[in-house]
This record gives sequence, structure tokens and C-alpha cells, in this order.
Amino acid sequence: MRAIVTIGFKEGVLDPEAVAIGRALAGLGFAEVQAVRRRKVIELELAGEDPEAASARVEAMCEQLLANPVIERWTVEIVEGG
Amino acid sequence: MRAIVTIGFKEGVLDPEAVAIGRALAGLGFAEVQAVRRRKVIELELAGEDPEAASARVEAMCEQLLANPVIERWTVEIVEGG
Repeated sequence: MRAIVTIGFKEGVLDPEAVAIGRALAGLGFAEVQAVRRRKVIELELAGEDPEAASARVEAMCEQLLANPVIERWTVEIVEGG
Repeated sequence: MRAIVTIGFKEGVLDPEAVAIGRALAGLGFAEVQAVRRRKVIELELAGEDPEAASARVEAMCEQLLANPVIERWTVEIVEGG
């Protein structure tokens, strides 16, 4: 079983790295870039057979380690079989 | 128009942060985690109307700034309208 965790900043949280990327692209002549957003994706290979239990465990992983619940939000997708 | 750029390490490149995440999860009792992979996603809002031209420009952005072509690979998806 696989879990695909997508983590991004909450609405309204400034992402300085995204701002820096936007400025650097403008400096390189890519003037068409109007906004930049970043997300990170963490893919976990999981032992076990129960997707609902896995989803709850991965939510706990996000809260405890993978994300910062103060400034980030995330989604968890469980892919069976793969 | 939006471009969604997904960047990950090439096959065989060690990702020390993914290894550290795996160890930390094991240390927290999440013993079911068998492997960890990371990707980053950069979403760009783009001016312009031509998706093929946009795709070529975003490929150039990846080569020049967004990714490290030596150790990373990427995909570019152009989303019209949004």
C-alpha cells in the first residue's frame, strides 16, 4: 500500500522560497510568471492491508512529524496495490 | 494558464532527507513505513495563451533554475483556463 501526502502552506502564509523563485525567474527573463506556489509530496510505502487504518496512521504522522500544523495543511491519499 | 512542475530525484540518487524521515517515523513507532520518497511541486501562474510555447518556456525554467538536471528529473503539466 502507498500513501501520498501533499503538504502546502495554509492560505495567507508567506512562502519566502516561492517569492525568491519568482524573483529569480523574472531576473532570468521569464516575465510571464505571475505567481509561484510550492508544495511538497512525501510518498510512503506501507505494510498492512487496511486502507482506513493506514489513512488514520498517516494523519498522525503528519501531525507529529511530516507537517507543521500551525502553518501547513495536507492531504493524504491511500493507493492500494501499488 | 498554470504550469505544474513536479521534481524528484533520478533513480539511484540517495535522498538523505527521505532517509531521515523514515528513521524518525520508525523512532516514533510507525513501524509500518517501509520506504519514503519525496518530490517537490512548483506551481506557476503564467501569462499567455499558447500552451505549447508555455511548456517549452517552463522546460527552460527547469533546466536553468527550478531543478538540478544532474540529479533530478521533472515533469511539466500545463493546465489551461484555471
